[in-house]
Amino acid sequence: MTEYTNANPSRGPSDHSVRDQIVDAATEHFGHFGYEKTTVSDLAKSIGFSKAYIYKFFDSKQAIGEVICANRLATVMEIVNAAIAEAPTAAEKMRRLLRALTEAGSDLFFHDRKLYDIAAVAARDKWPSAVRHEERLRQLVEHIILEGRQTGEFERKTPLDETADAIYLVMRPYISPIQLQCNLETASSAAALLSSLILRSLSP
Amino acid sequence: MTEYTNANPSRGPSDHSVRDQIVDAATEHFGHFGYEKTTVSDLAKSIGFSKAYIYKFFDSKQAIGEVICANRLATVMEIVNAAIAEAPTAAEKMRRLLRALTEAGSDLFFHDRKLYDIAAVAARDKWPSAVRHEERLRQLVEHIILEGRQTGEFERKTPLDETADAIYLVMRPYISPIQLQCNLETASSAAALLSSLILRSLSP
Repeated sequence: MTEYTNANPSRGPSDHSVRDQIVDAATEHFGHFGYEKTTVSDLAKSIGFSKAYIYKFFDSKQAIGEVICANRLATVMEIVNAAIAEAPTAAEKMRRLLRALTEAGSDLFFHDRKLYDIAAVAARDKWPSAVRHEERLRQLVEHIILEGRQTGEFERKTPLDETADAIYLVMRPYISPIQLQCNLETASSAAALLSSLILRSLSP
Repeated sequence: MTEYTNANPSRGPSDHSVRDQIVDAATEHFGHFGYEKTTVSDLAKSIGFSKAYIYKFFDSKQAIGEVICANRLATVMEIVNAAIAEAPTAAEKMRRLLRALTEAGSDLFFHDRKLYDIAAVAARDKWPSAVRHEERLRQLVEHIILEGRQTGEFERKTPLDETADAIYLVMRPYISPIQLQCNLETASSAAALLSSLILRSLSP
């Protein structure tokens, strides 16, 4: 399941397993002590590797954080895709998308409390993994709208881009972990209220 | 223009002017050095008062912060009310509300960069001034919807509470300074896109 955003194709499988080992240990370590406060030295000490050995596999602490973040966001996308796969209508897909996003976000970033830290830095500093995740979700929103326009569930007067951008903006506070943190208490009722509002705005 | 949330009716006007002086100096001081990092001692030193003298007028640093926050939020409400006062329709009121909120929020909390700090603490710790501000805005949204329902501009099928709650949720990321900070770059285009989406959701 681990994605290798820094993978070097010339390396053999044993190198891959060392990378895995570092990523697993770092996920654990950051999960306990936070990402921002941890140095590569701390991490090396806790795994029992030398700092130089870790730098053979990753250029920086951020490179390790990127892999962890990409893995976690890939899990969010899997959950979202599974949630909407069987939905009978585009409207139901839209509802499930918003519900799955808020639930997966709360579970994956706030259950392991300190991993929120990585996601927050990723969003703030626009890490490629976070930017790609946002793009994927924006595209998913557009696909669902298109589907609903084809089936006649949704109106077709508003330019597609405008509709997709606006709906994505409504969802964004529940996608970005920094903002989700402000909305955790109300996230589940918000998901229901907002998807109903979105669907009203889409009615033909 | 200053509101005295801690006002003691037995105190005379000269006490009021000392309170004003403390609030003005604290606004200046927090604006430079941030609210969280400043102590009442720092503040006393910068005004040239003794700490004990300041405590005669305010129970705590938070009591001073509350007055500053309440003043700033009152200014936001004035700007919002002025912006919607002359709007010819409920739909136009909704548009102007969202635009004025994002503009006033950006100006008042991010222009004086460090005052954002107070608003963030106020929102996080649910200070009465911040809670009241949210309630006022939620009520304003409900009033505008009611007006639009009466004039026939807006649909009447959805329960009023549900509509108002949902629209308020769409606006909230541009009201709360913590979330607005995440959205500053896109706030002005977001205000336009979101008010169009809201109006589509309200169409009869």
